[in-house]
Amino acid sequence: MPSERQPTGAATRDDHTEITVVGADRTGIVAGVTGLLFERDANVEDIEQTVRDGVFRMTLHADVAPDSDGPATDAEREELRAALAVLGDDLGVDVRVRFPDERDEGVAVLVTKEDHCLRALLDADLSAEIRVVVGNHDDLEAIADEHGVPFYDVGDDSGKPDEDRLLDLLDEYDVDLVLLARYMRILSPDVVFRYAGRIVNVHPSLLPAFPGAQAYRQAVEAGVRVAGVTAHYVTTDLDQGPILTQRAFEVPPEATVEDVRARGQPLEADALVAAARAHLAGDTAVRRGNVAVSGDHEFGALAGD
Amino acid sequence: MPSERQPTGAATRDDHTEITVVGADRTGIVAGVTGLLFERDANVEDIEQTVRDGVFRMTLHADVAPDSDGPATDAEREELRAALAVLGDDLGVDVRVRFPDERDEGVAVLVTKEDHCLRALLDADLSAEIRVVVGNHDDLEAIADEHGVPFYDVGDDSGKPDEDRLLDLLDEYDVDLVLLARYMRILSPDVVFRYAGRIVNVHPSLLPAFPGAQAYRQAVEAGVRVAGVTAHYVTTDLDQGPILTQRAFEVPPEATVEDVRARGQPLEADALVAAARAHLAGDTAVRRGNVAVSGDHEFGALAGD
Amino acid sequence: MPSERQPTGAATRDDHTEITVVGADRTGIVAGVTGLLFERDANVEDIEQTVRDGVFRMTLHADVAPDSDGPATDAEREELRAALAVLGDDLGVDVRVRFPDERDEGVAVLVTKEDHCLRALLDADLSAEIRVVVGNHDDLEAIADEHGVPFYDVGDDSGKPDEDRLLDLLDEYDVDLVLLARYMRILSPDVVFRYAGRIVNVHPSLLPAFPGAQAYRQAVEAGVRVAGVTAHYVTTDLDQGPILTQRAFEVPPEATVEDVRARGQPLEADALVAAARAHLAGDTAVRRGNVAVSGDHEFGALAGD
Amino acid sequence: MPSERQPTGAATRDDHTEITVVGADRTGIVAGVTGLLFERDANVEDIEQTVRDGVFRMTLHADVAPDSDGPATDAEREELRAALAVLGDDLGVDVRVRFPDERDEGVAVLVTKEDHCLRALLDADLSAEIRVVVGNHDDLEAIADEHGVPFYDVGDDSGKPDEDRLLDLLDEYDVDLVLLARYMRILSPDVVFRYAGRIVNVHPSLLPAFPGAQAYRQAVEAGVRVAGVTAHYVTTDLDQGPILTQRAFEVPPEATVEDVRARGQPLEADALVAAARAHLAGDTAVRRGNVAVSGDHEFGALAGD
Repeated sequence: MPSERQPTGAATRDDHTEITVVGADRTGIVAGVTGLLFERDANVEDIEQTVRDGVFRMTLHADVAPDSDGPATDAEREELRAALAVLGDDLGVDVRVRFPDERDEGVAVLVTKEDHCLRALLDADLSAEIRVVVGNHDDLEAIADEHGVPFYDVGDDSGKPDEDRLLDLLDEYDVDLVLLARYMRILSPDVVFRYAGRIVNVHPSLLPAFPGAQAYRQAVEAGVRVAGVTAHYVTTDLDQGPILTQRAFEVPPEATVEDVRARGQPLEADALVAAARAHLAGDTAVRRGNVAVSGDHEFGALAGD
Repeated sequence: MPSERQPTGAATRDDHTEITVVGADRTGIVAGVTGLLFERDANVEDIEQTVRDGVFRMTLHADVAPDSDGPATDAEREELRAALAVLGDDLGVDVRVRFPDERDEGVAVLVTKEDHCLRALLDADLSAEIRVVVGNHDDLEAIADEHGVPFYDVGDDSGKPDEDRLLDLLDEYDVDLVLLARYMRILSPDVVFRYAGRIVNVHPSLLPAFPGAQAYRQAVEAGVRVAGVTAHYVTTDLDQGPILTQRAFEVPPEATVEDVRARGQPLEADALVAAARAHLAGDTAVRRGNVAVSGDHEFGALAGD
Repeated sequence: MPSERQPTGAATRDDHTEITVVGADRTGIVAGVTGLLFERDANVEDIEQTVRDGVFRMTLHADVAPDSDGPATDAEREELRAALAVLGDDLGVDVRVRFPDERDEGVAVLVTKEDHCLRALLDADLSAEIRVVVGNHDDLEAIADEHGVPFYDVGDDSGKPDEDRLLDLLDEYDVDLVLLARYMRILSPDVVFRYAGRIVNVHPSLLPAFPGAQAYRQAVEAGVRVAGVTAHYVTTDLDQGPILTQRAFEVPPEATVEDVRARGQPLEADALVAAARAHLAGDTAVRRGNVAVSGDHEFGALAGD
Repeated sequence: MPSERQPTGAATRDDHTEITVVGADRTGIVAGVTGLLFERDANVEDIEQTVRDGVFRMTLHADVAPDSDGPATDAEREELRAALAVLGDDLGVDVRVRFPDERDEGVAVLVTKEDHCLRALLDADLSAEIRVVVGNHDDLEAIADEHGVPFYDVGDDSGKPDEDRLLDLLDEYDVDLVLLARYMRILSPDVVFRYAGRIVNVHPSLLPAFPGAQAYRQAVEAGVRVAGVTAHYVTTDLDQGPILTQRAFEVPPEATVEDVRARGQPLEADALVAAARAHLAGDTAVRRGNVAVSGDHEFGALAGD
């Protein structure tokens, strides 16, 4: 029986089961998870560990049915999931399992007040459903309503988001991909580690130039003649995650910050939509901080007049 | 009698006499030069001082004939030049004077081994004469010879340049603009301070991204989808001088460092020639680290397929 | 008549009149001020210009009575001050003049909530009077009251300070030296430029290591075995101003952030008091970003058990 | 039978077998090594992977005889070592195994021209033997000779070291700890990865301040009042490895670079010897970039007059 799990070949990790552990840093986590897998004859293909602000993450990729022609059976999956849940309880950490063919089920869009990227995503013909829009302000609720997508405001009066509420919503809507559509807050490691490689942000500069706030202003003050925007996977290093797509445009002499923003904003939406499409098609794979890409997507582009 | 010195208006400093002092940092320099100017009824418009690696530079812009309709007379100029020379001797510093209509007389091109930028400059129809080519290796001597331009190799066996020799050559050929055509050495403050705002380099990245060595490699390793090149004025801060021109191009998936270099090199030449033209036309003015530009030049461009 | 103004010799600028211009960056400022001085036969000894966040500052040091044996007369001073005020009005900038023997008249202490540095300053036998304590919270009002020093809270509910009010208070109390005694806000260029070289901060690290917030935490997380504190002049580059005094102490194995803070806080007060004393004695002079010191002060020290 | 492997308790990794893989980055390495270990009932306790300049390193800590009261038998060790060697050959990578009680067998000292640290190490009463001194110049050969320790010069005429030769020597002399006694070259990842956590350098500053070349000069130019030295484990991030010991000293006003160097050099030797002792006693353990220490060693110290 031929496997249908591997549409894009060995270049991606989509044929592996991904196990993510997030919690307090303590000994025994690696031994516990790898031991449990080996007892089930799984092969451990890769392990990554990170600590940030006291939060530990381990991401492990495994082939859980190496001797079989096909994917693990439902019973095998249930048993593994249950065993990992018990282990997680013992160790006091959060363990998640994603089997290869369970991915890309739902999309969440995170927003603040700017609407152009949200509108573009809702109008785009994506291969996955946008199930929920979450803001740290309620300004864009009407736009979500128009498209029949549930909207939640998780921010307090000053816009400070309640990330526990956010995580609950991502669970509740079975979200597999999170798109930051000009979401103007920094996600904590608690969120980033749980959705590693599955959060895409759009930043208004040609990264690695001009990370951080007010990127268009930075570009104008630096006197650049070419500016641009970047869609990238989010890591705990702000604006330094692996690059998916970029769009460049010319900065005319005398251009103001507002002029540059006006050129850039439509391209932000364009870059984010293209990045989402490439991810959802399974045509992107992160390895050692870069994205290996395939398929017919517009990863880089120059925006002529 | 109307002055013909000011084609581009108040936006540039081209209507001012520029006095540059380079040497050891000591007290008395500012007082000496400003005092000498005021005795001659000149107005001091601006003073900048910098120290780097123990070398002091003061650049002063003055209106030396503020009550006259036209420029200073030849006799006035000679007298001022002589007085400043005496002062410089007293203080043990090097003093240079450039009157507004004396500029842009000659061009020097500095090279190492790559020939594409040198060829483009020699073939371009610049408004000023390329009077000398100076290398820290002798690889490109034949190309200069073909074009009837004198070539000097100021490097030792390892390519280490003799900068005193370089400064002598720039004096001997009455050079006003220095173009770094893939010159792979860092100029010391001794040279940079004497030709502040008159040295243009081309760097193989979209600065401020990827300063330093191996910029194409850096870009590929960072996984960018858009790369480019930059021509900029040289300061003592490596690859951070004011930007003149930039060219961007798309980086296809799977592109190697060699692929990116092949796309970039013709654009390096293009950016450097355009920057030289804008400078020679007097259409560029540096203020607070940025270049104010005017005129019909291609400052930014996107290189489509 | 011999001048008594110059106890420390040519190494300091205390024998020069200092003219500070703060305002919007525009042409004509340098020409205006230097011209006005030369008409009065003053010598311009040094000029520094800076722009930050759109605020321009020029600091000019001049000898305003170079041909006289003594300082400028009261009448000459009044005339110069009045002429500069007129010029400032014309140019729309704020001009301040400090004659050499007018300095070090009064001290302001800026505070937030930590009291150890304020207490140490109020108990120290300084050569100048602490005339006012200004906070961005009112927590320390009682301490100022105990010592009979006026206290003002210029912060709003969130502690955001009203810097216009602060500048008015510094004027009203004729303040010449501002001591930041764990003032937890960043002063804007509007304040820093007006009191350049006359604001001293204490930072809880051995600068240049660990600038920015939570320096003790940074040190513990970096695993250093020696930590310390630094008193320095404040510039618009956060925690990078010229160093006055430093105190080092050992970090025992297993030390927590609280342990390190407990070791460091008494030294913060000690470093700040020593820095204030050296400044008030005229034994410090800033040149090119460093402090030249003289006199019998404890500039560096190691805190044994 | 009680194990004697664990003198310092769970805080260190000294009770684990360490497997280091260095080579080209490729898939299959993690799966291969972990699979091989699990077949032998070993527990994988920790895995770290790094890539630098195209060189891949995986360091894995395992408990290879978890069900036994004592260490693995000689036969078990031989079998595991042989199996890993076969796997390494298959994957084209270099695999090394260190069993817990095989450590700290021999010391190498790397030098250039400065002799004070080498002399101090040779005179110190270390718990392990200095088996070889390796220089990138031959200046210190006589000192090694005096102490009856073999000396090898692996540098060419310009001092460029032959690192393959260096690695051969470290193997030949069965070196477990490498001390950089003012060795003025940057070790490549090829060396650093093979001796991760077993190379100690001494740097002439209080890191993280003043990394890189000419640290004493940097300190003087920054105007610090307290300077110092640091011994640290070497990683591929220059001068950023985990800190072992530090020594601080006061910088008097007017101190020159030479003055500071004269104060610092005896402390360099002192810091390096103390760091070596703590490492050899098994009282240091690296975790997440910091060193956890125990035992009675002088990790931090202030050098009074």
